[in-house]
Amino acid sequence: MIGIKSIASYIPPGRIDNVEQAARFDRDEAFVRTKIGTPTLSVKAEDEETSDLCAAAVRNLLARNPELRLEDVQALVVVTQNGDAEGLPHTSAIAQRKIGLPTHVACFDVSLGCSGFVYGLYVLKGFMEATGLKNGILVTADPYSKIMDREDRLTTLLFGDAATATWLGCDPEWELGPARFGTDGAGADHLFVQDGCFHMNGRQVFNFASLKIIPHMQEVLADARMTLEDVDAVCLHQGSGAIVDAISKRLGEEGGPKVIKDMFGAGNTVSSTIPLLIERYGFDSDWRNLVMSGFGVGLSWGSALLFRRGQA
Amino acid sequence: MIGIKSIASYIPPGRIDNVEQAARFDRDEAFVRTKIGTPTLSVKAEDEETSDLCAAAVRNLLARNPELRLEDVQALVVVTQNGDAEGLPHTSAIAQRKIGLPTHVACFDVSLGCSGFVYGLYVLKGFMEATGLKNGILVTADPYSKIMDREDRLTTLLFGDAATATWLGCDPEWELGPARFGTDGAGADHLFVQDGCFHMNGRQVFNFASLKIIPHMQEVLADARMTLEDVDAVCLHQGSGAIVDAISKRLGEEGGPKVIKDMFGAGNTVSSTIPLLIERYGFDSDWRNLVMSGFGVGLSWGSALLFRRGQA
Repeated sequence: MIGIKSIASYIPPGRIDNVEQAARFDRDEAFVRTKIGTPTLSVKAEDEETSDLCAAAVRNLLARNPELRLEDVQALVVVTQNGDAEGLPHTSAIAQRKIGLPTHVACFDVSLGCSGFVYGLYVLKGFMEATGLKNGILVTADPYSKIMDREDRLTTLLFGDAATATWLGCDPEWELGPARFGTDGAGADHLFVQDGCFHMNGRQVFNFASLKIIPHMQEVLADARMTLEDVDAVCLHQGSGAIVDAISKRLGEEGGPKVIKDMFGAGNTVSSTIPLLIERYGFDSDWRNLVMSGFGVGLSWGSALLFRRGQA
Repeated sequence: MIGIKSIASYIPPGRIDNVEQAARFDRDEAFVRTKIGTPTLSVKAEDEETSDLCAAAVRNLLARNPELRLEDVQALVVVTQNGDAEGLPHTSAIAQRKIGLPTHVACFDVSLGCSGFVYGLYVLKGFMEATGLKNGILVTADPYSKIMDREDRLTTLLFGDAATATWLGCDPEWELGPARFGTDGAGADHLFVQDGCFHMNGRQVFNFASLKIIPHMQEVLADARMTLEDVDAVCLHQGSGAIVDAISKRLGEEGGPKVIKDMFGAGNTVSSTIPLLIERYGFDSDWRNLVMSGFGVGLSWGSALLFRRGQA
């Protein structure tokens, strides 16, 4: 049974002062801290490529888990929509070389945005089980600084750069429980890139997430014959302070206090927000389980349950 | 056990006369027919998007299999490196809407080139088994006409546009056997896109494929305790007439005659070449099994065995 053994991350050291940035758009610090959710945004160096973020996160994962040797890694999956190249080759192939992985590694990229970590877990677990692989790494690395228009007040205050690396293998710390997914291409034009610049209809995305995500998590809980009461933590995609607060509020007294909120001074790091939460809060906790939900570009969403070792 | 139930395709009707094209580069018809492998190339209409190719292939799949209803489709995976958008959103989300699939469909794109069908089969099968889904569609659609420099004699004679749609589900016609994969990012610059144009070092790719693919297929055969003698058909990625001939020759009297060669007047259609072969030659055959191998961009390669229903 393949599950999550460890998670590591890399947040590049560059920072944008979000309070200063907001002042240009006549927004005050309170707005930045509550609605946006972070006073700083992480940003990669100009010459740092997506594959460099991938390699840095994987190196941190290997440093944390010396028992996982390079030659034992059999699969590398990169979740990104902002890879190194224009379309091809895939970033995971470039990262394979930079990390120094052997050539018998299966590498592919998954194109998904903020739902990408939830999808990616089941894509890689499934691929490994279907092909008999024992150790794989799921990387999230989607640096929106590459497509950001710093004059667009609707997006420049929100997004930060980060990468995470999740080791999937046998005898896991977290087992993957029921999962559900969804797609609505009718909302494809709510988040898109044109002429190199990202555009977002924030209001539409907010409405979609605040209506869709709670019932979706409840369906997944029902699949496991559980309710919110049985859950120890709720790990939502950190789209913004406002969306996390809105969903927390709607979850009421039962669910709201279980929502983990932290943008790590980095911002909305797309598919990296959920693994950052689990890395920081999940492993040293006494949580027996958690429910997570990612949502965004597509529109696309995915919700799933993780069970602590022996708690399924 | 999830496997292949049906395959359909869509080759757009537009044609480029390859003999005429070759004359511009002082190459004769014999060169076009033997080294390239096809006297015509398929090309999509200017306003036809990648998602339109996907939708056309899926409609042909649904027409061929009336028992598969739109509302029964639970996953749609698109293998492409030339999607509709600049990075985001993913093409599978746009195709979801164009096809009219329900919003409870899991959609994601896999970024891979000519190895993409072999990878994609195990990605989707694994994802479905990990999440309990019963019916999924794997689409290949990578229209290189979007990135072709018609003045580049090394590439403009080779590539054509096509899409295929493969229905994965229970009680399959073809069961998925052992599979192996590989990646060598050291060859990432042998096939890449820059400033909107595709570039290829054909000699390097030819050498890689002619050396790597036979031993790789033999490893997969050994996984099933089989040899070339036990195989009914060899379905290679149709990179060019020359590479298919070179591998056939090296396979000798035992393997060579089992190699299927057909570019369908379309050319090298990237991840669509292998499913086109299986659609045309595999279903009405008496083959009990086949070995396939895809290779290209990355560099990336994947080889696998398929077993006819009841022959595993």
